[in-house]
Amino acid sequence: MPRVTVHRKAHFNAAHRLYRKDWSDEKNFEVFNKCSNPNYHGHNYELIVSLTGEIDKETGYVYDLGKLKKLIKIEIEEVFDHKNLNLEVPEFKDLNPTAENIVVVIYNKLRKHISLSLDLEVRLYETPRNFVTYSGN
Amino acid sequence: MPRVTVHRKAHFNAAHRLYRKDWSDEKNFEVFNKCSNPNYHGHNYELIVSLTGEIDKETGYVYDLGKLKKLIKIEIEEVFDHKNLNLEVPEFKDLNPTAENIVVVIYNKLRKHISLSLDLEVRLYETPRNFVTYSGN
Amino acid sequence: MPRVTVHRKAHFNAAHRLYRKDWSDEKNFEVFNKCSNPNYHGHNYELIVSLTGEIDKETGYVYDLGKLKKLIKIEIEEVFDHKNLNLEVPEFKDLNPTAENIVVVIYNKLRKHISLSLDLEVRLYETPRNFVTYSGN
Amino acid sequence: MPRVTVHRKAHFNAAHRLYRKDWSDEKNFEVFNKCSNPNYHGHNYELIVSLTGEIDKETGYVYDLGKLKKLIKIEIEEVFDHKNLNLEVPEFKDLNPTAENIVVVIYNKLRKHISLSLDLEVRLYETPRNFVTYSGN
Amino acid sequence: MPRVTVHRKAHFNAAHRLYRKDWSDEKNFEVFNKCSNPNYHGHNYELIVSLTGEIDKETGYVYDLGKLKKLIKIEIEEVFDHKNLNLEVPEFKDLNPTAENIVVVIYNKLRKHISLSLDLEVRLYETPRNFVTYSGN
Amino acid sequence: MPRVTVHRKAHFNAAHRLYRKDWSDEKNFEVFNKCSNPNYHGHNYELIVSLTGEIDKETGYVYDLGKLKKLIKIEIEEVFDHKNLNLEVPEFKDLNPTAENIVVVIYNKLRKHISLSLDLEVRLYETPRNFVTYSGN
Repeated sequence: MPRVTVHRKAHFNAAHRLYRKDWSDEKNFEVFNKCSNPNYHGHNYELIVSLTGEIDKETGYVYDLGKLKKLIKIEIEEVFDHKNLNLEVPEFKDLNPTAENIVVVIYNKLRKHISLSLDLEVRLYETPRNFVTYSGN
Repeated sequence: MPRVTVHRKAHFNAAHRLYRKDWSDEKNFEVFNKCSNPNYHGHNYELIVSLTGEIDKETGYVYDLGKLKKLIKIEIEEVFDHKNLNLEVPEFKDLNPTAENIVVVIYNKLRKHISLSLDLEVRLYETPRNFVTYSGN
Repeated sequence: MPRVTVHRKAHFNAAHRLYRKDWSDEKNFEVFNKCSNPNYHGHNYELIVSLTGEIDKETGYVYDLGKLKKLIKIEIEEVFDHKNLNLEVPEFKDLNPTAENIVVVIYNKLRKHISLSLDLEVRLYETPRNFVTYSGN
Repeated sequence: MPRVTVHRKAHFNAAHRLYRKDWSDEKNFEVFNKCSNPNYHGHNYELIVSLTGEIDKETGYVYDLGKLKKLIKIEIEEVFDHKNLNLEVPEFKDLNPTAENIVVVIYNKLRKHISLSLDLEVRLYETPRNFVTYSGN
Repeated sequence: MPRVTVHRKAHFNAAHRLYRKDWSDEKNFEVFNKCSNPNYHGHNYELIVSLTGEIDKETGYVYDLGKLKKLIKIEIEEVFDHKNLNLEVPEFKDLNPTAENIVVVIYNKLRKHISLSLDLEVRLYETPRNFVTYSGN
Repeated sequence: MPRVTVHRKAHFNAAHRLYRKDWSDEKNFEVFNKCSNPNYHGHNYELIVSLTGEIDKETGYVYDLGKLKKLIKIEIEEVFDHKNLNLEVPEFKDLNPTAENIVVVIYNKLRKHISLSLDLEVRLYETPRNFVTYSGN
């Protein structure tokens, strides 16, 4: 059967700041500029989750997108939406929440719920002009 | 010469329902939920056709996008637009018109008109949040 | 208090055909062209509901957008989504489901749930290129 | 000379929370739900500033959009971008930063720099689905 | 019958420069900056044409959007698309092609083909961030 | 460390015409149609620059997107924006400015400023419906 990629778009709003605990505020500002504002700033994050695999002959689906919508809701949206990433998402307790680190965290959280017969890619828009993509390599 | 991908966006509106003739209405509803509504529902399908190949030294084109626009119009839009996919597009007489199956049908219809020296990829948006991609693998 | 307009975007997918029962198929085709296809076609309808009124001094809201989201879900999305407008939405039993008539039906369904101290406007996108707006005049 | 409206789009990212100091956390949560998260959340705010007036016969401009871009940058973006609205924008020290209140604050900040011969309208997108408009009435 | 607004989106690509023949190049550059480049620059102009009137009881249309599409094609797209506005569109022989002046020219070209029982508004996007609106006042 | 792709969106407006000096105007028109208009036409070009590499353990960045924004500004926007590509960008003195050739020129201009440990891909939208992608192969 043909291998097709199915994509599902989702979103969440969150606050964050870029900084390392082991650096001074000056060093953080020097490297991360206004993104290191100690009072936080925030984004409407847009997320695209993509799964590649063979079409199931029975259903004509690679993966039920309704099921994928629910998985993203439970694993990602309910954990990240309207949250402060630095303070409220445990993965970022000691990890700087750059877009790159966030997309890897999201990938890892989804990967364990998706059969290995399916390739997974995650794209995360921090703003319409800045975005990142990760596929587990 | 460099290998470049050229992309052309197109669209069509159509009605469909997801179901298998050999399943009961109950089984169809159980698997496909409201998408199996016997009275049909519909979408504004957005299509992106991508061709990858070497730039022609004479013209600076990989493929004339005006010619690609016409090919998509004749092969896809005139066949799918303002149609009921289940009843009026022969490929779906016995094939469930999921986004996955539709994108493979579109790929196959275009592939026979495009030189094999060009790679072909087709992306189909069923809604802005649900979409699929196929490149013939 | 200042008068501000709050807007909420929603969407639904539906099948429809444009036709009048009291006209022949030929007349319907002559006037409505491919939109009168007896087997139906469909759209991803995008909806923007706008309410204008004074900011509430207590809450800083004109109208709680979470409440508006729920109202649109119950009154519009659950009635129109994944439906055949001609066959399954009673308002169109004898009314041609043009975008113009749909937007007036949506306006009337919402108007009775919104206090008259608030102005109401409804915009409906049938496609990204064709859309309509109604504000009750 | 004809009266034309000129529009300029801008954007800023910010953190905020919805709450009233004089309410308990419970009351704030009851009214503002997850938007009252004490650790803040955030948005990519998109802004459209519109000026209506007669075309200047000399220049063919209603208002130089390059000048408007700079005005928005100085008066709005530099004050709101990558900031915590509750903590760092003085107007919200005692004012709940709902989209409605933010759009009125932006309007008032711009109004004093724009000749009264021009009508002013401000639209603010908190998310692609939730937005507000204010024109000084 | 209810008064509804119907909108149709169209587009054209064109080159232009902002300048006045009776000003020196220096004065043109001082006022219009890089937009006065003597070698021209260009845009993908997006156009939204809006007509407001009563729904026709027979058809359920305010105005047949297929007919409006054709009118825009003949009156605007065929005249402006892939053209140099300064050199090839007679209205700009002695009129500076600012977005404001272009939208008034488009309005006037369409107005004479639209019944006075319908209100007309034209919106023109020069870029996604700069746009203008005119409704004949 | 995981390999992630970071993307930055930019844009410029420019005029161009498609033609070859060594062909007659007739031949140019036959091959390039209205795109060969001797008076030029233009576009709002949208650009997406993508870099793939390992996340830096120190910063959590693959590449500082603020730095990438500046690089694109200096190398591409200041050279192409509000310019006539045929007359003012030296690379197109003897090279037909098709989207394919433009994207290769942009790639080559950026490639020399980006470490070879990072993969580079450039996507260029000539219009929302016509676009091209190049990754150096």
